[in-house]
Amino acid sequence: MAKNKPVAIAIHGGAGTILKANMTPELEKAYHAELEEALKAGHKVLKKGGSSVEAVQAAIVIMEDSPLFNAGKGAVFTHQKTNELDASIMEGKTLNAGAISNVSHIKNPIKLAALVMTESRHVMLSGEGAEQFAQSQSVEMVKPEYFYTDRRWQQLQKVLKEDPDASKLSEDKDDKYASTSHQQPSQVSTASDKVWPDDKKFGTVGAVALDQDGNLAAGTSTGGLTNKKFGRVGDSPIIGAGTYADNESCAISATGHGEYFIRAAVAHDVCARVKYKGIKLQAASDEVILDKLVKMEGQGGVVGMTPQGEAVFSFNSKGMYRGYVDAEGKIYTAIYEE
Amino acid sequence: MAKNKPVAIAIHGGAGTILKANMTPELEKAYHAELEEALKAGHKVLKKGGSSVEAVQAAIVIMEDSPLFNAGKGAVFTHQKTNELDASIMEGKTLNAGAISNVSHIKNPIKLAALVMTESRHVMLSGEGAEQFAQSQSVEMVKPEYFYTDRRWQQLQKVLKEDPDASKLSEDKDDKYASTSHQQPSQVSTASDKVWPDDKKFGTVGAVALDQDGNLAAGTSTGGLTNKKFGRVGDSPIIGAGTYADNESCAISATGHGEYFIRAAVAHDVCARVKYKGIKLQAASDEVILDKLVKMEGQGGVVGMTPQGEAVFSFNSKGMYRGYVDAEGKIYTAIYEE
Repeated sequence: MAKNKPVAIAIHGGAGTILKANMTPELEKAYHAELEEALKAGHKVLKKGGSSVEAVQAAIVIMEDSPLFNAGKGAVFTHQKTNELDASIMEGKTLNAGAISNVSHIKNPIKLAALVMTESRHVMLSGEGAEQFAQSQSVEMVKPEYFYTDRRWQQLQKVLKEDPDASKLSEDKDDKYASTSHQQPSQVSTASDKVWPDDKKFGTVGAVALDQDGNLAAGTSTGGLTNKKFGRVGDSPIIGAGTYADNESCAISATGHGEYFIRAAVAHDVCARVKYKGIKLQAASDEVILDKLVKMEGQGGVVGMTPQGEAVFSFNSKGMYRGYVDAEGKIYTAIYEE
Repeated sequence: MAKNKPVAIAIHGGAGTILKANMTPELEKAYHAELEEALKAGHKVLKKGGSSVEAVQAAIVIMEDSPLFNAGKGAVFTHQKTNELDASIMEGKTLNAGAISNVSHIKNPIKLAALVMTESRHVMLSGEGAEQFAQSQSVEMVKPEYFYTDRRWQQLQKVLKEDPDASKLSEDKDDKYASTSHQQPSQVSTASDKVWPDDKKFGTVGAVALDQDGNLAAGTSTGGLTNKKFGRVGDSPIIGAGTYADNESCAISATGHGEYFIRAAVAHDVCARVKYKGIKLQAASDEVILDKLVKMEGQGGVVGMTPQGEAVFSFNSKGMYRGYVDAEGKIYTAIYEE
């Protein structure tokens, strides 16, 4: 049964250089539609009395299943032409958390992160080990080719062309594509030279929510960096960097140049400023994103939520796919700076 | 040339249930001697005008090379009878950081973490990818058998005996030992039933230092949890959980039940309390370790250092291998509560 306490949800679909010049009206519409669908899915869970952890998952699953965002289905390719996905989730009431890094066969990484939180004794599982754990859980596994999209494949080709070092490396023995191709040559040759409006975007999706019990949650999911090497781990699966939730301060999901977000411990730092300095969430987010990170030259942003259900956005890049549902249930979505 | 500014270093070799009843005078002496050697190595670097990052590495390398601590040589065994090592390091002046997780062929993980910081564009590399990166760096690689110690092998056997689930799993197809044995049966059979004083210790080593330029650094290295599964990652390689350094607040290296340390973002939280609440480092450490973590039932401790070179220890367990060098160069080491 639904209770009468306020509920709230806010999401992001990545921040970075999103250029209107390269955006078609059709694509813009598609982004707004996906953001709206994700918000509706999360909000529906909350209105029914579901938990913020469930709502965060419901919203993120929509974005993971869309090829438009760099998470789940739309994940970018690594240097080895594989897809390695990361995700994390955290519950503000208990500080319980779950995270996975570098998985390649999980359709919805955010669901596996949630299962790590509730069904394992651990917080963070990585690589093949995380997939072994997944096999004991009710989570959908997919073949690597599920993550093939022409757009991401072309992004990798472009980066490899622009980076001579990378091209050289792509021919070496570590080129897994040669032996485990999940991509037909004919598919490659049909690829267009389309320029996407957000090729320089840090692709990540995330959500923060407040449920009827007054509990906050935050979650983040990503396909990482195009052409990433060496089992690089960004901020998305790092509790304290990409994701943090504490009922005593706020819930945060971050998106940006992960290395800077780890070094600045972005998600936890925003919460710590709210908790210890006693400032508002918008001010705390702006201090970290618009001042601290700008000085470090780290690009990106956060979506945050207060224990009262106020959604906050802060980003130092040209745009951030984002949206929230207000107290009356009205849905707002946006892409560029305002 | 040495300058005349104060330098300082402090270390830990893990916290947990260290029982005097199971400690022999010889073993106790050996622990004190190793701690002293590690402190001397780090202090020597600092007195010569070396950086805090170099000093932290020098101290940790001594402990990694000792079979007494769960890091490097003395790393515990995973469920698959392998050794998976983690480490991280951070520089307080720049907030630069490096971390590696789940490596199996790196003699001194702390050195590789430092190379990730200085020689890569990334902060965190994991598993095989991290080892690929290592091959391009001047870092000593070792065969898996380097990490075999009888003591750690027996610890795994004991845990497998006590945990029927774990024993069952050890016979399944994921038992890598069957195919990649780095341990002769004869070695197993010679194993004693010796009870160690710290079988229930959370094994980690760490160091914090202040150099003559007034820069802080922190580093942490571990062999993880005995019998760990699923590519579990603890707090040691997580910037913000196991390690944090910021010249504006403090340097922290943590040791304890990693899952709790990640959820509480221990290292960053201590620094944030110093920075935003304006309290002393000892008070901030005690708030996190003796209050917040105790309420969460998370066992462990931290070693910390102020920008003035004051060493601080805080732990909620029965003991913590630890030590520091005072302003006059005198070395102090300790094991139990005082």
